[in-house]
Amino acid sequence: MARTTGSDGEKTEAALREAAVSLIARLGYEAMSMRQLAAEVGVQAAALYRYFPTKEDLLFTLMREHMEGLLKAWEAARPASVDPVTRLAAYVENHIAFHIERRHATHVSNMELRSLSHERLTYILKIRTTYEKELRTILRDGTEAGAFEIDDTGLTAMALIQMMTGVIVWFRPGERLSIAEVTTTYLSMTMRLVGATISHGTARPSGRARDAVAL
Amino acid sequence: MARTTGSDGEKTEAALREAAVSLIARLGYEAMSMRQLAAEVGVQAAALYRYFPTKEDLLFTLMREHMEGLLKAWEAARPASVDPVTRLAAYVENHIAFHIERRHATHVSNMELRSLSHERLTYILKIRTTYEKELRTILRDGTEAGAFEIDDTGLTAMALIQMMTGVIVWFRPGERLSIAEVTTTYLSMTMRLVGATISHGTARPSGRARDAVAL
Repeated sequence: MARTTGSDGEKTEAALREAAVSLIARLGYEAMSMRQLAAEVGVQAAALYRYFPTKEDLLFTLMREHMEGLLKAWEAARPASVDPVTRLAAYVENHIAFHIERRHATHVSNMELRSLSHERLTYILKIRTTYEKELRTILRDGTEAGAFEIDDTGLTAMALIQMMTGVIVWFRPGERLSIAEVTTTYLSMTMRLVGATISHGTARPSGRARDAVAL
Repeated sequence: MARTTGSDGEKTEAALREAAVSLIARLGYEAMSMRQLAAEVGVQAAALYRYFPTKEDLLFTLMREHMEGLLKAWEAARPASVDPVTRLAAYVENHIAFHIERRHATHVSNMELRSLSHERLTYILKIRTTYEKELRTILRDGTEAGAFEIDDTGLTAMALIQMMTGVIVWFRPGERLSIAEVTTTYLSMTMRLVGATISHGTARPSGRARDAVAL
């Protein structure tokens, strides 16, 4: 038998996280019970509390991993280039790729903020702000360099993020469009929206989106 | 005392709908109980069931009124003009104005589709499709007339709708921007996104958004 990585405990925790994301996406956080989650994964309720002492600990873990994961993915994808068009294209590609792969977790992350304690909410919103600020910086740099024509950097950043995250509402793998095709169209819309002074056709996905065709 | 319109029954029903929207937005549909809702409005649980025989009847009523209301608002706002830029501007203005006024109902409408029976879900999605098709028609007409430059009409319609509906996530009346200012910026972004062959500055809100300043 092939050896799998991670202890049994790590595997159980991963299974619990995955089942929790899917249960919360289906029922909502308030309606999901820890008993239900334990049954779903086939562990005793008592064992579940070893991993997540409270239901809110579980929710916070899911949200923190989602937002920290997004920020880390962007830090890995962020190009060395100072060209605002290249940087904006990389941001769009990373944002779409990350969220398309994590549809339920994105749903939970966006909808269940209401159920976090004040301190934990503040922490999650801080990471979110850091991530959004990266986009605002790109937009501002591009405007200052004369590469973009933008009325309001804050509103443009929100509009772009909501437009891109919205992909998860309707995108299903294996239907009319591939991830690469969706990304190409969103890159083109993004560049037009920010008034990028490049022709529409030049904003093509770089490595990541092309690779996605083969997934 | 000034005479208010509507029978006591109608007023109770309206109060129940309003309280339900706010409870569901806060707790999620599955977690909200009919008992809680009755207590919130100060009616007996038995009385509540006269208005909404089942919890799903209540959810369906909220969603149907939201979507039918949106379609009706657009039918009233739809300009007689055949000019695609004028029509697109009217669509954007109506969409933003309608949703900003109904933040919680929009939230419920977008998040709780999972809890509708198949038949009712089909009905709601049919109205939604009719509404979205209006936008796709404007985009297609504009592309055919050479007024817009669009790669994919379906994706552009989804991107615009999600970008606009996203306003409710961050917009709060009385903060930095008025509804009219937000609408102006979104009109400008929309016109650039569809490659409208007008200068960016000309897409200004018509009557509705200007009126909103005085609200």
